[in-house]
Amino acid sequence: MTDTIGPKSLITESQTIPASFTIGFLGAGQLAKMSAIEAYRLGIQVAAYTDRNNHEPMHFISPKVTTGSFSDVEAMTEFARQCDVLSLENEFIDSKVLKKVQENSGTPIYPSPNGFAKIENKIIEKQSFENAGIPVTPYKQINRECDLKDFGHQYGWPFVLKSSKGGYDGYGNATVSNLGEAVEMFTELGGSDGHEILAEAFIDFTHELAVQVAHNGREYSVYECCETVQSNHICVAVVTPARVPDSIKKLAQKYALEAMKVLATRGIVAFEFFYTSTGEVLLNESAPRPHNSGHYSIEGCITSQFENHIRAVLGLDLGSSELIQTACVMINLLGTQNRKAQIECSDELLPEPNGHLHMYGKIQSKIGRKMGHYTLLGDDVESVYARAIEITQGLQI
Amino acid sequence: MTDTIGPKSLITESQTIPASFTIGFLGAGQLAKMSAIEAYRLGIQVAAYTDRNNHEPMHFISPKVTTGSFSDVEAMTEFARQCDVLSLENEFIDSKVLKKVQENSGTPIYPSPNGFAKIENKIIEKQSFENAGIPVTPYKQINRECDLKDFGHQYGWPFVLKSSKGGYDGYGNATVSNLGEAVEMFTELGGSDGHEILAEAFIDFTHELAVQVAHNGREYSVYECCETVQSNHICVAVVTPARVPDSIKKLAQKYALEAMKVLATRGIVAFEFFYTSTGEVLLNESAPRPHNSGHYSIEGCITSQFENHIRAVLGLDLGSSELIQTACVMINLLGTQNRKAQIECSDELLPEPNGHLHMYGKIQSKIGRKMGHYTLLGDDVESVYARAIEITQGLQI
Repeated sequence: MTDTIGPKSLITESQTIPASFTIGFLGAGQLAKMSAIEAYRLGIQVAAYTDRNNHEPMHFISPKVTTGSFSDVEAMTEFARQCDVLSLENEFIDSKVLKKVQENSGTPIYPSPNGFAKIENKIIEKQSFENAGIPVTPYKQINRECDLKDFGHQYGWPFVLKSSKGGYDGYGNATVSNLGEAVEMFTELGGSDGHEILAEAFIDFTHELAVQVAHNGREYSVYECCETVQSNHICVAVVTPARVPDSIKKLAQKYALEAMKVLATRGIVAFEFFYTSTGEVLLNESAPRPHNSGHYSIEGCITSQFENHIRAVLGLDLGSSELIQTACVMINLLGTQNRKAQIECSDELLPEPNGHLHMYGKIQSKIGRKMGHYTLLGDDVESVYARAIEITQGLQI
Repeated sequence: MTDTIGPKSLITESQTIPASFTIGFLGAGQLAKMSAIEAYRLGIQVAAYTDRNNHEPMHFISPKVTTGSFSDVEAMTEFARQCDVLSLENEFIDSKVLKKVQENSGTPIYPSPNGFAKIENKIIEKQSFENAGIPVTPYKQINRECDLKDFGHQYGWPFVLKSSKGGYDGYGNATVSNLGEAVEMFTELGGSDGHEILAEAFIDFTHELAVQVAHNGREYSVYECCETVQSNHICVAVVTPARVPDSIKKLAQKYALEAMKVLATRGIVAFEFFYTSTGEVLLNESAPRPHNSGHYSIEGCITSQFENHIRAVLGLDLGSSELIQTACVMINLLGTQNRKAQIECSDELLPEPNGHLHMYGKIQSKIGRKMGHYTLLGDDVESVYARAIEITQGLQI
């Protein structure tokens, strides 16, 4: 059974889109921004609550951006009261805070606090999915230094150490090759100060895969299985469909749908998998929101992850997740310099047929910061990928 | 030679998109809104100046909306100074005002005041295009009541009377069947009070066509020739490609490109044509901005009229105007009731594959008011049109 609460959620059960309906985002970055753009297309208003300064992407596309702490229940409740529904753009808020805000304001939040509680902590996340029979990366909670030795003994070296909360893009986790490194990293991640740490077996994978699933309380929309290409723990490209056997893509989609049912929430969730060298598909992580792995869907699919997220949280019928062309490649455009942001387009970038540039409007460029992305559609995945790399390499941002 | 002025325009000659670049729209309705959405995708900020209340579509998607009169040069100059480039969303501002604002602020305006001056007045517009050898509807300026009789004598009854400025969607013009009606309408349109009135021969046309052309100062992008279907002087649907012979579509595109060269401005311009029962293509009107006839391009073309308009006014390379599928139909969603706006979606509307709903976010619905539009793509124009009608008829808005 999907969570629905409060009278406000009833507004949206009738397939009616009222003017002045407001979706509030907790977070004001590019994910909120790209979601907002799809809300705007449907005539829906968007507000944002952020703990950052006034140069976030949402600040320049919405007149309703509020600043406050993500632990300030009172301020978030006040924000929620001005909205008809809330949604998240990151996982750094405590589910207990979300629950209180939802109760106090009467405004439904998606992902639901109950669903979010199942994944906000990486240890609980793995247990939730494991209990539903979905294969996950072997893991163990590490309470003491001696657990490190045991884990290494059982699963071999190297392995991965992670904070159970708050990590992203390589922050909050590290691969350790021996006990000395493991002890050092355990301390660095705060393990000796009581922070929850988990160890994960090092997976010898050939591909990292991702599948987005949207749910509106009645039906599911499952996206194509895509392939995320990482460099230095940051996703640099997404190739759709993934270059793995069809049976593997179907298996990932099956696990993603099952995992979505575990969360029992409206909204869109991205599920990330390892496809191992021994042919297994293991669920690695989930993100209960539009996700970088799904940006390709803006032009690549009939209905983007962002639009289906908006539809889902409103309880509206979902749109088709079908691919528009047979191949779609998304390249993350990372900052190449530390400076006031700008993109110096090459002669090929903007005129390329079937190419689409997205810039997030961040004011400050930093080396490695996600500043925008570029999506290229075509018929053949390898040639589209090669062309997308060719067009975007050397761009100064 | 295309107009470019001032140091600000130089920013954009380098194919660089700087963060904090701001496009200002004169007008805050759905055309500014849909343009803003494409600007946002490129990380560009958008401001708007409007003479209307605070319930215009732009109010809820931009933090930078200013209210003032379109004849207040000082206020518009102040607005222009906060922007890097200005653009129009209607034709109700005097080109002399635009010229002063551009001179005083140093901010370029597209359409350029010089280009706009060639079409802001319907009589001058016809002369501009006629001088370039483009066939236009036969017309004459009507200064006195006796001119009405002469025009009827020369071109036959009925004919059409129009204000030379300010008309749209059937306002400011009328078809008159005899001298009595003509005299009455001449007075009603202000002809006896010195307002400029023109008479146009009544054209026995089989189709109304439209072509959008974008220009960035270097290159042109010409869109497919589409067909606008009118009812009570309001466009109710746009069918792309138009259901006329290929040679006719090519001729309309050729005239549109020639007419764009007459205006010599950056931006996008829509050109509307009559395809007559005798096989002629006559230029009827032009609109120097994104236009209702081009809304289909959002999903129908690789690069929409809105995105190419943004690229054009920035001097960035244009994108492909190619159709994504062979047939595309856009249905205008007009208000069906006078009430607080909402759309009651049918069971078929949102799930339809290849269908895309756009609502403008207007707060008040009025019978006949343009509240949104619906675009459906497919392979065959007749069946897509039939299906689009089927899906949208009976919608309560």
